Amino acid sequence: MNEASGRRAPADPSAVRPPMRDALVAAAFRLFTERGYEETTVDDIVALAGVGRRSFFRYFPSKEDVVFPDHERCLADMRAFLAEPDDGAADPVPRVCDAARLVLRMYAENPDFSVQRYRLTRKVPGLRAYELSVVRRYERALAGHLRDRWADRPGGTLRAEVTAAAVVAAHNNGLRSWLRSDGGVDAEAAVDQALGYVQDTFGETPGEATAPTAAVVAGRTAQDVVVVVSRRGAPMWRVVQEIESAFGRD
Amino acid sequence: MNEASGRRAPADPSAVRPPMRDALVAAAFRLFTERGYEETTVDDIVALAGVGRRSFFRYFPSKEDVVFPDHERCLADMRAFLAEPDDGAADPVPRVCDAARLVLRMYAENPDFSVQRYRLTRKVPGLRAYELSVVRRYERALAGHLRDRWADRPGGTLRAEVTAAAVVAAHNNGLRSWLRSDGGVDAEAAVDQALGYVQDTFGETPGEATAPTAAVVAGRTAQDVVVVVSRRGAPMWRVVQEIESAFGRD
Repeated sequence: MNEASGRRAPADPSAVRPPMRDALVAAAFRLFTERGYEETTVDDIVALAGVGRRSFFRYFPSKEDVVFPDHERCLADMRAFLAEPDDGAADPVPRVCDAARLVLRMYAENPDFSVQRYRLTRKVPGLRAYELSVVRRYERALAGHLRDRWADRPGGTLRAEVTAAAVVAAHNNGLRSWLRSDGGVDAEAAVDQALGYVQDTFGETPGEATAPTAAVVAGRTAQDVVVVVSRRGAPMWRVVQEIESAFGRD
Repeated sequence: MNEASGRRAPADPSAVRPPMRDALVAAAFRLFTERGYEETTVDDIVALAGVGRRSFFRYFPSKEDVVFPDHERCLADMRAFLAEPDDGAADPVPRVCDAARLVLRMYAENPDFSVQRYRLTRKVPGLRAYELSVVRRYERALAGHLRDRWADRPGGTLRAEVTAAAVVAAHNNGLRSWLRSDGGVDAEAAVDQALGYVQDTFGETPGEATAPTAAVVAGRTAQDVVVVVSRRGAPMWRVVQEIESAFGRD
């Protein structure tokens, strides 16, 4: 199995967040946890935070938005990251995986808050729906990048949409295993492993980066099936050597 | 590219739907189209359909549900289809693809309605959110089936979730290309092609079903990369023959 790309998204430019905004989030979560989400009104939140209603709506369009205060920033960061020049990288999948890691980083910045929110979101269908909409926006940003990169390929759009969905599903698998463990498992390792699987499945890096001619990729197929990824120009003797070694006939 | 599985989901057991329910859907869509979704109330709908409010709520929990009247039935059909014995099929991916085709069939049963709803859903964010929740329920049903089938594999859950997301993304890619064309493109062919790509990427069937020894899978990799799927016990001369033919050196 190939290693996931060693590249990482750039360091968070330590976004400056106003204290009042943080105070509103803290007050909201205290009330959501103590009384329940549905039972808490915006008036309750502003009373506890000691500010006026207008201040709340300056920062958050609705009560739902205070539950997910950082997704808009993270979406903007993701779009900016994807818009950066990629130094002519042939395979856009590693960059899309790195873009997904920005979401993990946002969750990992504040682990207690993330675990608390995860528990809350499980209980409130409206928040689940909100979260699905956000996830879909991340997926569209990733798919858009891949679609642009694969625009001149037959089936490029299909491939872009399927790959973006796979990246999001893998990222969320890793993220959830961390959230469910109350932060016990290593979040980054869980997401790296999940994204590594997608990179192996959809990326072009395996055949190019790990072997100059042919690479035998195991682990994602049945015991009795061997998948060989080879450059078209590889000498046949080299390909046969790789296959024979995979078949255990060397 | 390998052919998608030839299996198809079983014939729709021609669900009997009460005429009043259909009348409510028809009235609702006439009003949504003429006045707009937000501007139409449940009272307007029942007045046009000539029934009482109670009749509306007997069939639909909310105004949103009348926009998607067949998803609950389709979800139930999907779960029933996935629960059927699979005659020991080694690869669960073709069945999951067939289960996704049940959704396409639901849309294709009533093409005008589906195209009309697609246009409406684009315009109303609340309906988009509702649709995302439904899509997620389909995805969970598919992932649950794959998770059970791959329960004893390392990484089985990850693989199940990524594959289910890929199946849903591919299905929706085909479905959308049909809906956007106002029914002009062949819906089934579009979805078959998209699911064929997922089957090639995630299924185990390519190496087993389409060639007794080795199959060269093209179309999902870069121009200069060839992917060979081969049974471990295949004679080397046969594998080399397949690769040479793919390399254009025959």
